[in-house]
Amino acid sequence: MKTLQDYIDKLNKLNFKEMYNNDFFLTWEKTDDELEAVWTVADALRFMRENNISTKVFESGLGISLFRDNSTRTRFSFASACNLLGLEVQDLDEGKSQIAHGETVRETANMISFMADVIGIRDDMYIGKGNAYMHEVSDSVKQGNIDGILEQRPTLVNLQCDIDHPTQCMADMLHIIHEFGGVENLKGKKLAMTWAYSPSYGKPLSVPQGVIGLMTRMGMEVVLAHPEGYEVMPEVEEVAKKNAAASGGSYRRTNDMKEAFQDADIVYPKSWAPFAAMEERTKLYGEGDTEGINKLEKELLAQNAEHKDWACTEEMMSLTKDGKALYLHCLPADISGLSCETGEVDASVFDRYRNPLYKEASYKPYVIAAMILLSKFEDPAALMKKLEERNVPRVFK
Amino acid sequence: MKTLQDYIDKLNKLNFKEMYNNDFFLTWEKTDDELEAVWTVADALRFMRENNISTKVFESGLGISLFRDNSTRTRFSFASACNLLGLEVQDLDEGKSQIAHGETVRETANMISFMADVIGIRDDMYIGKGNAYMHEVSDSVKQGNIDGILEQRPTLVNLQCDIDHPTQCMADMLHIIHEFGGVENLKGKKLAMTWAYSPSYGKPLSVPQGVIGLMTRMGMEVVLAHPEGYEVMPEVEEVAKKNAAASGGSYRRTNDMKEAFQDADIVYPKSWAPFAAMEERTKLYGEGDTEGINKLEKELLAQNAEHKDWACTEEMMSLTKDGKALYLHCLPADISGLSCETGEVDASVFDRYRNPLYKEASYKPYVIAAMILLSKFEDPAALMKKLEERNVPRVFK
Amino acid sequence: MKTLQDYIDKLNKLNFKEMYNNDFFLTWEKTDDELEAVWTVADALRFMRENNISTKVFESGLGISLFRDNSTRTRFSFASACNLLGLEVQDLDEGKSQIAHGETVRETANMISFMADVIGIRDDMYIGKGNAYMHEVSDSVKQGNIDGILEQRPTLVNLQCDIDHPTQCMADMLHIIHEFGGVENLKGKKLAMTWAYSPSYGKPLSVPQGVIGLMTRMGMEVVLAHPEGYEVMPEVEEVAKKNAAASGGSYRRTNDMKEAFQDADIVYPKSWAPFAAMEERTKLYGEGDTEGINKLEKELLAQNAEHKDWACTEEMMSLTKDGKALYLHCLPADISGLSCETGEVDASVFDRYRNPLYKEASYKPYVIAAMILLSKFEDPAALMKKLEERNVPRVFK
Repeated sequence: MKTLQDYIDKLNKLNFKEMYNNDFFLTWEKTDDELEAVWTVADALRFMRENNISTKVFESGLGISLFRDNSTRTRFSFASACNLLGLEVQDLDEGKSQIAHGETVRETANMISFMADVIGIRDDMYIGKGNAYMHEVSDSVKQGNIDGILEQRPTLVNLQCDIDHPTQCMADMLHIIHEFGGVENLKGKKLAMTWAYSPSYGKPLSVPQGVIGLMTRMGMEVVLAHPEGYEVMPEVEEVAKKNAAASGGSYRRTNDMKEAFQDADIVYPKSWAPFAAMEERTKLYGEGDTEGINKLEKELLAQNAEHKDWACTEEMMSLTKDGKALYLHCLPADISGLSCETGEVDASVFDRYRNPLYKEASYKPYVIAAMILLSKFEDPAALMKKLEERNVPRVFK
Repeated sequence: MKTLQDYIDKLNKLNFKEMYNNDFFLTWEKTDDELEAVWTVADALRFMRENNISTKVFESGLGISLFRDNSTRTRFSFASACNLLGLEVQDLDEGKSQIAHGETVRETANMISFMADVIGIRDDMYIGKGNAYMHEVSDSVKQGNIDGILEQRPTLVNLQCDIDHPTQCMADMLHIIHEFGGVENLKGKKLAMTWAYSPSYGKPLSVPQGVIGLMTRMGMEVVLAHPEGYEVMPEVEEVAKKNAAASGGSYRRTNDMKEAFQDADIVYPKSWAPFAAMEERTKLYGEGDTEGINKLEKELLAQNAEHKDWACTEEMMSLTKDGKALYLHCLPADISGLSCETGEVDASVFDRYRNPLYKEASYKPYVIAAMILLSKFEDPAALMKKLEERNVPRVFK
Repeated sequence: MKTLQDYIDKLNKLNFKEMYNNDFFLTWEKTDDELEAVWTVADALRFMRENNISTKVFESGLGISLFRDNSTRTRFSFASACNLLGLEVQDLDEGKSQIAHGETVRETANMISFMADVIGIRDDMYIGKGNAYMHEVSDSVKQGNIDGILEQRPTLVNLQCDIDHPTQCMADMLHIIHEFGGVENLKGKKLAMTWAYSPSYGKPLSVPQGVIGLMTRMGMEVVLAHPEGYEVMPEVEEVAKKNAAASGGSYRRTNDMKEAFQDADIVYPKSWAPFAAMEERTKLYGEGDTEGINKLEKELLAQNAEHKDWACTEEMMSLTKDGKALYLHCLPADISGLSCETGEVDASVFDRYRNPLYKEASYKPYVIAAMILLSKFEDPAALMKKLEERNVPRVFK
């Protein structure tokens, strides 16, 4: 697109009324129009920034970030998104191990939110916990707003939970859309979301789950490949199946990486932990069974080590469509011979795709900003028109 | 009040000239007019925010926060207040145990203040230290400003010291004023500031001290109740007595919780450590006597455990005026059967007052912002008029 | 100077085209005109702030700070500088000991920079590492910008490396310029950069190196004095010699502190570690040889203790020009009888120079802001004119 008006026109054709004053938890809780609105607003925000048009819509207000796991990329993406709109980030540092519930969540959520317009949470460590916790926070501040405690209702943005990683997957998808020249070109394309070996273990399932839950909506042929024992949450597979049926695409699972890569247009090879093991770990943590956890970790590492052949090698890449499938990763990747001896991907493959990978990541701040904007403003199309007319430069010149 | 002009008119009747370019340490160092100015500006700022009028008065400038104790509520209140006015918060992380004095304080205070408009400090751990430290910082930057080192004089806001917790108590009082429909309705009302059992020990005395030092100024009948041995600082009791005499109210102390609750209009049951024990602890810390500290802690916990009957139960509440006294707490409360086995308050009592309690807390950011504004601007009434005329929206629409 | 136009006129006479869209690593990589541009813009920014003219040139954008060593002064200076221009600071907390290179640096640098206009790095711990690391980061984001990953190229500001401490030395120099009434008055002045005893060991060499690398450019007689064994990097001494030759001044080294102080106009007595020992330490760290490091530390402390007579005493000060040389220090100083038993400087000397020392430090935020501004704007003179015309007050009145 060439002008801001093009984005505005596109937005005006979409129905995303329900996003106003609402949260973003899982992509499959959103309609196709709503997802398209996110991508459109993300592109429009990028267009404005690139054309030195300030998109600062808040004169004051806080963006609260709560990371229950270390994070650099998502943290900076959230900070960038808030800053782009005029919100100042305040980190709530809870201590990593503490999983507070009930009264405490309700109270803390309100206490930090008197001037908060958005709350971004990453809580992906324990199966059955992260998404539930986000809902607790959201319910608390929603109620606080209804009860007159909070003047505004802070929007919740899921920065990664145990089920989905929507800001990542939405950025991945926006990257795909740009690479393939539009959503309309994705029908029939084959996408392989495959497990890959990494010397570490216990990586979250939210990326593979988020990918099969989102990418099946575009009419693509989505294949999930992993060794036996590395199943993802069955509920999410159900989602993927329904999505595929509705979009005219397909979803299937295989234990054969080569089969998945064969003629693929897009590959997303990445390590994750087995769902059942993560459930077990959550249970052991709940019981404070350190010995059990150590034993489980040992078993998982041993199980892991049996699948070193699951790697995105040059040979594997040569199986893909014209040997040139679009390689995706949420980063950081475990690169064989570089960041580890044997990892998820060959150094030469990674190197060839570095720029697209970085580009992929660059969409995340805009996707987050779009999610915030769509929640805080009833008519984002009109808002963008006004921002263009206001014509305040991002950098004064 | 219905319009901003009402707040402006009220401000114009008050004398608060001395607040300009000055600090806020203890409420009893301020005149009645000055306290009323804080509440009026706080309400006006809230009114403006609720009516989408930006109160950003600083285009740049830092708000330095220095917390010598963990804090979530006060930290976010200070951050919210700074952000509301346009100041960016920078935390000075000194390390919790370090108590630096003399040359170091003077130097550090100046080094961080080149572009600081306000410094907020919480230092409540050791008797005789916190308030003194704040004065050292304030004196340092005041001198730095006189000497031409600092272009501006950073305002100091006491975010809790060993003597007072003025931002908390001023927020508590603003809540009371709103609940009772005005300062003029407080005369003769009975307020019970009472000790309550908590399984933890060593909670600061600044809240009970701040409450009896402030609430005695409104002509209320203030009762401080605690078990023998839980005395507060005698100097603050002297302040309370003088305030009561001057305001036509009363101040007295009792060791009987029931007597304090009897017919009370307002109750504030909360755990604190005995002043004498805190003094002893400060001495032991100074001597680095870890064994002595552990011994003292043990003794205090044993002493504590003898007073589990000091709790804000339903039965206690039924003693109050119509059984419906306004229940206050600075939060977080130790709730029996919820956050601990036996604590300060019954879950059912707390639950009934949750919304008012959250509302009480919601005044703190505005109170802090008002303190800053009254110190940085010579004519806040005129400023507010100009802000209304400027009419920049907080959220661009 | 009396008006902003004076600074603008001065700028218009200087050639600093190469600073646009460029980094600031070492002062000796910059021309005399470029250094003068930094001081001129720094003074102009201070003038504007003092006259309540907002210099906020960014409506949004991040300033990333990466401190691989504890820091209060430089951290707050960087935060102040960013805030003055409208950038929000985000700290990248890497963990102090981690020295990441190669792929990781490239990736991380890009991932945090999608909306970063400046990156400030302090990495002064290991010889041969800090400056090299900064170049890696700079090269990464420069390439990222060329490859279309990053819309803008983030400017790198060296907040202290193993070779130079340019923001400190540029602030020191600006202080000298103001004290002596102009660059033109520095010719022939004697400056003594001398080692001084401190009970700690291992202080970075970047200050003495930065000082001899910069101060030799003004036609001054620069003397570096230290006990045998405390040599600095020979490459930097070469720079100092060349500078002195070019500027009509002189550079020499002595092992006699008194000789250095004799008739000095400016003295800068300060502890540092021997270069050779720092090189050895870097090697031992690389090998993970903890025992070797402990042994080295012991040796260095013993070596250190032999030179307690290297102190800036009253007696030493009396040797200087009229007994009134300008005393400089980057702070904090080790003050004898105050912060330690025997240290770098007598308490009475330090006390007499406290105000000038604090003033010296106060230039740093402006120097950093000037470096950012000169990199981000092609025509800073025109920009300042426009800022004056825009006439937005820093504090709304």
